[in-house]
Amino acid sequence: MNSPPKTVVIGAGPVGSLAALYAAQRGHKVEVYELRPDLRKPGTIPLNFTKSINLAISERGINAMRHASHSSLLEAVMAGTIPMYGRMIHGRNSSGALFQQAQPYDARGKAIYAIDRSGLNFRLLDVLESMPNVSLFFNHKLTGADFGKRRAWLEDSQHADGNRHTEIEIGFDLMIGADGAHSAVRYHLMKFSRMDYHQEYIDTLWCEFSIGPQTDDKSASKFKISPNHLHIWPGREFMFIAIPSADGSFTCTLFMPSKQVKDLENDPSALPTFFDLHFPGVTDLIPAESLIWSFKKNPHLPLISIKCRPYHHGSSGVIIGDAAHSMVPFYGQGMNAGFEDVRILFSIIDRHAGVCDNGAAESLHASMSSSQRAEALAEYSAVREPDAHAINDLALQNYIEMRSSVLSKRYRLRKYLEEFMSVNFPSFGWHTKYARVSFSNEGYAEIVRQSKHQGEVLVYCLAGLVASPGIGAAAYFTFRSRNSIFSALGSFFGFI
Amino acid sequence: MNSPPKTVVIGAGPVGSLAALYAAQRGHKVEVYELRPDLRKPGTIPLNFTKSINLAISERGINAMRHASHSSLLEAVMAGTIPMYGRMIHGRNSSGALFQQAQPYDARGKAIYAIDRSGLNFRLLDVLESMPNVSLFFNHKLTGADFGKRRAWLEDSQHADGNRHTEIEIGFDLMIGADGAHSAVRYHLMKFSRMDYHQEYIDTLWCEFSIGPQTDDKSASKFKISPNHLHIWPGREFMFIAIPSADGSFTCTLFMPSKQVKDLENDPSALPTFFDLHFPGVTDLIPAESLIWSFKKNPHLPLISIKCRPYHHGSSGVIIGDAAHSMVPFYGQGMNAGFEDVRILFSIIDRHAGVCDNGAAESLHASMSSSQRAEALAEYSAVREPDAHAINDLALQNYIEMRSSVLSKRYRLRKYLEEFMSVNFPSFGWHTKYARVSFSNEGYAEIVRQSKHQGEVLVYCLAGLVASPGIGAAAYFTFRSRNSIFSALGSFFGFI
Repeated sequence: MNSPPKTVVIGAGPVGSLAALYAAQRGHKVEVYELRPDLRKPGTIPLNFTKSINLAISERGINAMRHASHSSLLEAVMAGTIPMYGRMIHGRNSSGALFQQAQPYDARGKAIYAIDRSGLNFRLLDVLESMPNVSLFFNHKLTGADFGKRRAWLEDSQHADGNRHTEIEIGFDLMIGADGAHSAVRYHLMKFSRMDYHQEYIDTLWCEFSIGPQTDDKSASKFKISPNHLHIWPGREFMFIAIPSADGSFTCTLFMPSKQVKDLENDPSALPTFFDLHFPGVTDLIPAESLIWSFKKNPHLPLISIKCRPYHHGSSGVIIGDAAHSMVPFYGQGMNAGFEDVRILFSIIDRHAGVCDNGAAESLHASMSSSQRAEALAEYSAVREPDAHAINDLALQNYIEMRSSVLSKRYRLRKYLEEFMSVNFPSFGWHTKYARVSFSNEGYAEIVRQSKHQGEVLVYCLAGLVASPGIGAAAYFTFRSRNSIFSALGSFFGFI
Repeated sequence: MNSPPKTVVIGAGPVGSLAALYAAQRGHKVEVYELRPDLRKPGTIPLNFTKSINLAISERGINAMRHASHSSLLEAVMAGTIPMYGRMIHGRNSSGALFQQAQPYDARGKAIYAIDRSGLNFRLLDVLESMPNVSLFFNHKLTGADFGKRRAWLEDSQHADGNRHTEIEIGFDLMIGADGAHSAVRYHLMKFSRMDYHQEYIDTLWCEFSIGPQTDDKSASKFKISPNHLHIWPGREFMFIAIPSADGSFTCTLFMPSKQVKDLENDPSALPTFFDLHFPGVTDLIPAESLIWSFKKNPHLPLISIKCRPYHHGSSGVIIGDAAHSMVPFYGQGMNAGFEDVRILFSIIDRHAGVCDNGAAESLHASMSSSQRAEALAEYSAVREPDAHAINDLALQNYIEMRSSVLSKRYRLRKYLEEFMSVNFPSFGWHTKYARVSFSNEGYAEIVRQSKHQGEVLVYCLAGLVASPGIGAAAYFTFRSRNSIFSALGSFFGFI
């Protein structure tokens, strides 16, 4: 039997860890290198301290873990999650009273799940550590990679001696770069692959806040607001969201243009008033001093959008996750798309290796030639590019639409009609774009195409409605009854 | 007196060397770090072995050296150049005979100058080495930079000991990244500055060839073809150019889509036939075996186009030249724009330091605060971005137009009218876009605006011509007499 391929994964975040697991299950000799210390060790600054600690995992992420075929991973991961069946839009109605409106994501009760990034990462690392063919290396920085000779150089920051660092040289058959938006793998890959690359910052910063658990003993719930919703305080230029955590708290994110952030940085004491004006009710949930403290203590971080192509070089290198397609968070798909990358990448490699459903993956992967792997990686780049670009665009569009000062009536009407069709005529396979993105595994690019098609069909339907006063009137009254500004805004912030 | 600022330049190519010279002349303590060995040492592979060895230097590049105010630099550099007063278009006329047509660049005899990249680099390094406040370090690779703490880390590849490399840590007030398209400075700067970044490869590869000197003793010239022209063999999809060297040879470049390159790679023996078909006359200048040998030996390299913004971070980092705006070579402005970066960057820093024409630059630079330098760098980014993007677009447009399968008559007519106006009515300040780019120091963005304006004026002129039969007829006949396909193509390849 041939010796198994050696796969080096750079980056031990959730996406890199899942990729390592997929490779390990196919018998590869896997080495994972992570720049930062092991996040499982006490006292370690969270691995992803520049990333949001709360995430929504949905079908694509779950499906990728399902396909990892690990006996307990999915169950263990999902046990710590909280289902969110819809959005909860917060605001003030015309008479000035606080207002909450729930909007289910799906007529049949499908949910997305609030998950703790570190917890997920912990579990994946624990699984990897238990596997005999996986080695984990922390505090290792990739300083160079030659994708022609399949050699890479890493610096071990823990074993530095004065100004002399220990540099190790390693060989590999395949290097998988899952090292995030500022990927070092991508940087070195670019010297070998003729990569078209585009990165852009949007003029919005984000900052994390927290709603503490319920402290009122008489309350039946440990949560101050519904744990089964993703809470949104919409605004034209600002937005505040809250996602539940298992301990009864909510992790919250404020999104705001950099100019306003600067203004508040100059006078953080204005924060409670600012919140009362734009995010009614939040100061009842977060005390003013805690609001100010979080704003001062937590970083104000930018949002980057990255598109590139191809994702690979020859048979030896490929980038996945944020390294390949960082996106703005307004569709809640960043990590889900990264997990899906792993599933699709390995399904394509499997096929080129000749792996069928009934196994023998290890020996087939071991006997795979480098030209077969090169073909697989080329197919991965070709297949994945349109989908990665599509979800990137969807996320960015939601941001742009979100900021457009006028919420067009046509947009709101379409949103409503789509949901109406989806709920009332599910057998037509009519789903909202949001549902297709969050609850299916359809290609993102295909969803965009379908959605465009649905839009055209809707125009005809609308013409039909006008021609049939009965249906038209029924639709109109249903629409009117739900058509508060918050409903419209909620559909509109269709992102999560 | 305050101690002088410490300026670290990464990259000792022509642009980095010129930047180091500018800094040194302002009293900075300058350190230059170059990844590769000293190109002046015998046996060193040329520093820029992945770059074309022949270049055309024009007004912007010359002006930047002029402003370096070094007693002998400009004179020494220009002594080795060869003026090119126009294009020489090569082809076959309708009866199949070989054909050459000269097209002057400028009615008043202005020229661009063929220059040897290594020779230019040699001179600049020699000048730097003679200065007491400049230190040159070769074989040093930038591995990290913290633009907040102003510290950087470099690996000394010459003093490696097994797998333990010597890493040095240095401090700096200002780091200037002139380390080319794959800039490490830019990579690290991106982690500090919110940089929008775009890179794109065009589907054209280039390969270098050489026309040897005249070997016929009876010939009066050591050149086989005119030394005072830039020779162009145009083609719809391909192009071959030749630039003179002082020894009587010509350095030539073939540009070709990657598919055709691959076809020829599979059968290099087809090269002479291919050349005879597309570049008539070249096989009389380059023997067939030499043509094949060059194609096999020399790399087939891609062309990258890079745009980004901003170019700086705070008061501590800035990128210039290809690191900031690699462009395709179809306007002959790459190095010229890089040299101009240096002139403009230091003129802005000078102004913020309070430097007037009459000097005291050293003490003023020494007493410049970091917030003053931050303002200067921010101004540089703001001022330079539109110009860098404009020349990038111009270069790319020329490439796109070059490849358009139909040479539009309107385009050719405009080209002709512009040249007609420029030659016959110079006092109107009417210049072709090419002349403005190559013979002036006007901002590139302003040239694009002016050129658009000229285009509009031309429409009116044209209307006038039609209305005045006398002028119209005169213009028509002049036009007809010059209007061979090669003339049109030549104007069209207006790039160099």
